[in-house]
Amino acid sequence: MPGPQKNLAASVNGSRLWDRHMAMAEVGGTPRGGVHRLPFSAEDTASRRLLLSWAEARGFSAQMDDFANIFVRRAGLDEAAPPVMSGSHLDTQPLGGKFDGVFGVLAAFEALEALEDACVQTKRSVEAVVWSAEEADAGFGIGCLGSQVYADPTKLLPLSQIVDNKGTTVREALERMLRDHPKLPRRDFRAPISSYVEAHIEQGPALESGGHTIGIVTAIHGQRWFEVELFGEAGHAGNFPEKLRRDALLAAVQIIAELRALFYDPSDIVRFTIGRLEVDPNALAVIPGYVSFTIDFRHPDEEVLSELGDKVAVVAAKNRGPCEVKVSEIRRSRTTPFAGIVPKAILAATTNLRLPYCHIASGAGHDARYIAELCPTGMIFIPCWRGISHNELENASPNDVAAGARVLAETLLVLANCEF
Amino acid sequence: MPGPQKNLAASVNGSRLWDRHMAMAEVGGTPRGGVHRLPFSAEDTASRRLLLSWAEARGFSAQMDDFANIFVRRAGLDEAAPPVMSGSHLDTQPLGGKFDGVFGVLAAFEALEALEDACVQTKRSVEAVVWSAEEADAGFGIGCLGSQVYADPTKLLPLSQIVDNKGTTVREALERMLRDHPKLPRRDFRAPISSYVEAHIEQGPALESGGHTIGIVTAIHGQRWFEVELFGEAGHAGNFPEKLRRDALLAAVQIIAELRALFYDPSDIVRFTIGRLEVDPNALAVIPGYVSFTIDFRHPDEEVLSELGDKVAVVAAKNRGPCEVKVSEIRRSRTTPFAGIVPKAILAATTNLRLPYCHIASGAGHDARYIAELCPTGMIFIPCWRGISHNELENASPNDVAAGARVLAETLLVLANCEF
Repeated sequence: MPGPQKNLAASVNGSRLWDRHMAMAEVGGTPRGGVHRLPFSAEDTASRRLLLSWAEARGFSAQMDDFANIFVRRAGLDEAAPPVMSGSHLDTQPLGGKFDGVFGVLAAFEALEALEDACVQTKRSVEAVVWSAEEADAGFGIGCLGSQVYADPTKLLPLSQIVDNKGTTVREALERMLRDHPKLPRRDFRAPISSYVEAHIEQGPALESGGHTIGIVTAIHGQRWFEVELFGEAGHAGNFPEKLRRDALLAAVQIIAELRALFYDPSDIVRFTIGRLEVDPNALAVIPGYVSFTIDFRHPDEEVLSELGDKVAVVAAKNRGPCEVKVSEIRRSRTTPFAGIVPKAILAATTNLRLPYCHIASGAGHDARYIAELCPTGMIFIPCWRGISHNELENASPNDVAAGARVLAETLLVLANCEF
Repeated sequence: MPGPQKNLAASVNGSRLWDRHMAMAEVGGTPRGGVHRLPFSAEDTASRRLLLSWAEARGFSAQMDDFANIFVRRAGLDEAAPPVMSGSHLDTQPLGGKFDGVFGVLAAFEALEALEDACVQTKRSVEAVVWSAEEADAGFGIGCLGSQVYADPTKLLPLSQIVDNKGTTVREALERMLRDHPKLPRRDFRAPISSYVEAHIEQGPALESGGHTIGIVTAIHGQRWFEVELFGEAGHAGNFPEKLRRDALLAAVQIIAELRALFYDPSDIVRFTIGRLEVDPNALAVIPGYVSFTIDFRHPDEEVLSELGDKVAVVAAKNRGPCEVKVSEIRRSRTTPFAGIVPKAILAATTNLRLPYCHIASGAGHDARYIAELCPTGMIFIPCWRGISHNELENASPNDVAAGARVLAETLLVLANCEF
């Protein structure tokens, strides 16, 4: 029997939440304090078992779909109404950290527990979700597999056929994991969701450097990825005069310098990164005959993405010097804006709790990008130490973790009771 | 008994010389038409045996010093006078070509044979030399070992202790080769040489593109090698705003662009090459946290080498942006000018033979750099196909090979008979 209703934010238990992060971090924990829990691995399965053991202890039910996405449910008064959902992922990058994804799952689970502890009845059910294989990009070249398939089951077949560098398909890796997985009642792909909130560490330095505890996410940036290749001619560094050289590295440097000037944005919204650059033969006394480099360009405005992005090939052609150049667009994704009731509820919860906050766009992709195709969606960011993520050094403060969970719990409560 | 004296240049046998190149190319020959005959290898020893078998067939004597440098001798009238010497090396780069080094040895040997065939008596003896381990830089990081030790035996101990990437010292590699080597009478290091001429393929495109058959080498460029390291900070490409980034690659690009402008030389004498560039972590969606690149700078003028080279660190410091920068000079060698009787004799022989020629500086190092410390020295270049060298595709025309050998033979004849 539920007792008298208590304050929800006060029922969010910061030390319990922190302890669960530390317990989860032992599953695939590395000697340097990081976590190596690859999608579909035994550690991935073990982390889900741990969460389900906590759910069972609290009397929460759970379901799973055919892509092993898990839904832990605290039932509402109207069991038939689509649930309010919150979560993220438990898998990590190779040698990743303790908070990326995990915070979103555990903060959602803490919200369920806090609702329980505060003896709060909600109209809709509230669910904590674990999306499968969010970090699959390291092995399979594409991430957010679980949320993508949930939102659009027609992607199941093509995504299942992707192969990692050991020749294993997504289908094989998924089936191997499902064999070891706890059996749970079945949930259909695209089962209706009332609204979705994802909490996550920022994975950038803006909140920390600005002194904000909460980031209310306005959008996930659209992005365009390019590969630029320069075909020159290798030659002896001592004997080739400048005028007979076709130096692929100098051409690449010229193109990068021009692109940098073109993408310079005084308002600092453009994200422009040359992350990978390869030189061949890459020998001290040999003129580079071939260079390839990548461009990662992100922006919240589709028009800017189109206009600026389309200039990459133009700048490359104009500055190729005596080399041949080839520009390939290797990925493009649209901007996902977050607006409406979910960000409004996050803002209300944040101001009620009197936490310092800012509005922020996410340059990184998240499962929320795909769930936003199904229902009103928003995201809550908390700071992470020096912006470092996808790294064993990834860290967050217990205070910010608790604050983020409080905002999430209050947000979910509002969304679970509102009419729409 | 010698017959009547004949024209020396006409006695240079182009097809014999070409056939010997092709026979030598089978020792360590690769399926793609190149040669893989590493210093101190079994193939290196086999190539020397082949040369010594040809020498024995012509009645030429041979000696060897303690670094396995080999001297094949056609005796002059004055056996006690220091010999005129010519040669180069028989070892190759990994997957190298048929002509680099080999041409210098075989052209010198052809000159000895032509002197013999033409029944020409010389005052001084004429010798064809094989310098050991010229191409040792690929394995041991430093080349021209045999000629260096011959010219300065105090280098024997330090050079012997250098280790390759398998942990083998130069001393061990040399001793292993000497055990299998034909036994020859002993020659001392620094035994006097009257003058030295080295014939070589250009390893650059200038002769071919200028329509010259002969390059009369004016100098071996001095060179300075630098490593520049940029220390920034890695971060997520989507989430780090520009103003909080410490992007090591953008800093490197800025430095390279400035250096390129600084080293630009309308007279096209400066040789400036960024051959190697490494990015860490070198991942598409990660801001580069560390970049290193090398600078290979060569010039015939010591003053330019000093002044321009000293500006590398200044430019790097000025353009490092928010990164730390470290500049290390990893090698420096002085310019070796060729002037006096040897280039004069080469010029006379070339004009007598009415061959198209030019004066040319060598950006590449050669054994002649070290022998020039002992005696008057010069070099003869012939064209190589498209300037390609240190490569299985390396090629030269039979006509140019024969022309170079004719110039060499006439030059050696003059030097062997002149008084100085």
